[in-house]
Amino acid sequence: MQIKYPLIMINFKAYPQSSGRKAVELAKVAEKVSKDTGITIAVAPQLTDLALVAQEVDIPVFSQHADAVEPGSKTGHVTLQAIKDAGAVGTMLNHSERRIRADQIDWIIKKAKELGLLTVVCSNTPEVTAAMAALGPDMVAIEPPELIGTGIPVSKAKPEVVTDSVKLVQKVNPNVKVLCGAGITTGDDVVAALKLGTVGVLLASGVVKAKDWEAAIRNLVEPLLK
Amino acid sequence: MQIKYPLIMINFKAYPQSSGRKAVELAKVAEKVSKDTGITIAVAPQLTDLALVAQEVDIPVFSQHADAVEPGSKTGHVTLQAIKDAGAVGTMLNHSERRIRADQIDWIIKKAKELGLLTVVCSNTPEVTAAMAALGPDMVAIEPPELIGTGIPVSKAKPEVVTDSVKLVQKVNPNVKVLCGAGITTGDDVVAALKLGTVGVLLASGVVKAKDWEAAIRNLVEPLLK
Amino acid sequence: MQIKYPLIMINFKAYPQSSGRKAVELAKVAEKVSKDTGITIAVAPQLTDLALVAQEVDIPVFSQHADAVEPGSKTGHVTLQAIKDAGAVGTMLNHSERRIRADQIDWIIKKAKELGLLTVVCSNTPEVTAAMAALGPDMVAIEPPELIGTGIPVSKAKPEVVTDSVKLVQKVNPNVKVLCGAGITTGDDVVAALKLGTVGVLLASGVVKAKDWEAAIRNLVEPLLK
Amino acid sequence: MQIKYPLIMINFKAYPQSSGRKAVELAKVAEKVSKDTGITIAVAPQLTDLALVAQEVDIPVFSQHADAVEPGSKTGHVTLQAIKDAGAVGTMLNHSERRIRADQIDWIIKKAKELGLLTVVCSNTPEVTAAMAALGPDMVAIEPPELIGTGIPVSKAKPEVVTDSVKLVQKVNPNVKVLCGAGITTGDDVVAALKLGTVGVLLASGVVKAKDWEAAIRNLVEPLLK
Repeated sequence: MQIKYPLIMINFKAYPQSSGRKAVELAKVAEKVSKDTGITIAVAPQLTDLALVAQEVDIPVFSQHADAVEPGSKTGHVTLQAIKDAGAVGTMLNHSERRIRADQIDWIIKKAKELGLLTVVCSNTPEVTAAMAALGPDMVAIEPPELIGTGIPVSKAKPEVVTDSVKLVQKVNPNVKVLCGAGITTGDDVVAALKLGTVGVLLASGVVKAKDWEAAIRNLVEPLLK
Repeated sequence: MQIKYPLIMINFKAYPQSSGRKAVELAKVAEKVSKDTGITIAVAPQLTDLALVAQEVDIPVFSQHADAVEPGSKTGHVTLQAIKDAGAVGTMLNHSERRIRADQIDWIIKKAKELGLLTVVCSNTPEVTAAMAALGPDMVAIEPPELIGTGIPVSKAKPEVVTDSVKLVQKVNPNVKVLCGAGITTGDDVVAALKLGTVGVLLASGVVKAKDWEAAIRNLVEPLLK
Repeated sequence: MQIKYPLIMINFKAYPQSSGRKAVELAKVAEKVSKDTGITIAVAPQLTDLALVAQEVDIPVFSQHADAVEPGSKTGHVTLQAIKDAGAVGTMLNHSERRIRADQIDWIIKKAKELGLLTVVCSNTPEVTAAMAALGPDMVAIEPPELIGTGIPVSKAKPEVVTDSVKLVQKVNPNVKVLCGAGITTGDDVVAALKLGTVGVLLASGVVKAKDWEAAIRNLVEPLLK
Repeated sequence: MQIKYPLIMINFKAYPQSSGRKAVELAKVAEKVSKDTGITIAVAPQLTDLALVAQEVDIPVFSQHADAVEPGSKTGHVTLQAIKDAGAVGTMLNHSERRIRADQIDWIIKKAKELGLLTVVCSNTPEVTAAMAALGPDMVAIEPPELIGTGIPVSKAKPEVVTDSVKLVQKVNPNVKVLCGAGITTGDDVVAALKLGTVGVLLASGVVKAKDWEAAIRNLVEPLLK
């Protein structure tokens, strides 16, 4: 699958606001705004909601996590095959709340390419971003954990973390796209992230906890329409 | 929720045969046999298929795993709230392919009771079965890992593991029901398991990999109808 | 090895005050007080200091942790054989700062018995204490994590956690001795712990961070001499 | 500390042959050959033997593993401070038998630099080697896990894994030295490893399990003396 950038990626985390049937509702709001505006909006619902959401919307759906195991006798694990069978287009990996090991990320990225799935690997420092880029995923998402959920965008609080990440990825593996995460809430934050050399944003609470989901998402994409 | 025993519990593991839409199909076959015979048949689909399966069938659906975390900023984790929102009635815990720690199991069991969810904790030896019973789940499932997937039922190969487990659970916490797992394939295995003092079976490949799912499940429940 | 109770067990944790050569010094102070008073005082230095400390003192030395693996190709793991070869008499397991799984604790306890090593399994709630007792270690140590390092003894703040633990262990496996941990600092705390039905205490910062190690340890054992 | 290359690094793993007092004996043999020949030979004893070995020999001693935690309330963990206090000069990280996460490796490498400790990060594929090099350790050690302990040197079985690793490290971070591991047994293997662009070897069973330790080590360094 080809992603059309810029990309707004909404991580539903394990928030009660976006769980079960509400995951489908939020995904449908994201789909509506995406269709109206032409901007790519992807969603990453909880693991338990993945197949349910993926079969009800026509925007890119990602898993929040994958395990480095083959299908088979693997109770309680999330295989790439399961992600594909669920109807998702790819997976996030190594989120600060669900880190995995580099050898596992390497294995999953290679297997995802075989299966035609996309990979977005999260990282916390420019050095880790470079390391993850060396493994050749489709995207890396730089997110200083101390800013996650604060509403303080990394692009303002620590722009050098983003620009250093972009620079290192350019050197190590220029095919890898960089997303900007942590603290993103508004369209201004999105614009700032793109100006720092990224192709989009990864956010969660800024949308999921908003009282009006549609207004929150429209606010994010609006500056991209001009 | 009240389970009517005996119980046949089918773990879909991460088998490709029971992934995505095929998970729904297999669950519907289990539902059909259950309705025809009045025997309780529960299913535990992959995490990614949980909500999809739970909304399409009217038999008990369990998660294969849960994490000891509250809902919220917990990317890639499986909360009990997510399991409940998905429409499942409970969760397996501590399968030999996905062990977790005793303090986590303790936490999850207490939280599951608050939420009205059932818990089935797997174990590998009589001592671990007793330990898990001390934590007060609804059920424990004794499964010597070396027999899992072999088609050699524990009730034949190592009946003393089952009877010792039943005895220790009686002593430690007689409210806890015991299931028999590992190597179960036929109705005879089910009958043997019940004779050893258990209230049912936990199985996976014996059904999932069968060419004819309905025949395999009917074979399991048949001796219980006499 | 036979432990003579009551037992004062000092966990050095990873405190800089008791690291390297200072681990030997602290162990020698404990040895001196033990010889002077006849009260059993055991020490659990950092993993890296285990052999060094064990060869320099003649009191029981415990590892802070063990891994459930056989000797061999196991880089970076702590085998029971290594603990024995280091000259230690046993190991702590499942400390709140280093939890392991119940099946691993079961395996380690059985293997430790073969090797003649003692096991002390930590727990956080009465239910987990009962579960650990079902696995048959020499001792369990009940330590509500929220009191660890506070100087508020569990025997005062939550005596029912200790008495409930003692009661459940009596029922599940009366051969298992109970230690009382978390917040122990003074001889009064030790006396209170023994009155609640335990055979001794497990403590760390109360001794390690004391300005005068010998005075701190003497204060602990003094009420036991009357 | 400055390492003089080439480097022969002997990992004692958890082999019973090199445990406890025998760890000191093997380290003394390595020291003797190193003094006789002028070739740098480092040893990595079991965690439990680290301080004991480090205080008895005058060659570089490494830990087999470190945890990404600060000194303090961290029972059962291996801090960098503990490694330094034990008298070691650095640590191996991420061995195939003890993998850790990339963000942890990043944290440990930065902290090790502050403390003046060396880091050797193991990897399994050229991509992971590049990723680890991006984190800036002193050395990476490429070891295809399937060759570990086989006696079949990677330099013969899969030389391209080594040369690809060397090439990628040159591009990503040329300050990082590359060691060659897996299957190394003889001086010829060492020479082959150096010819592929590495600065030395990491080996274990080839020395530890040898009947005559001194002969085995002399055989390794001999071709380097010409």
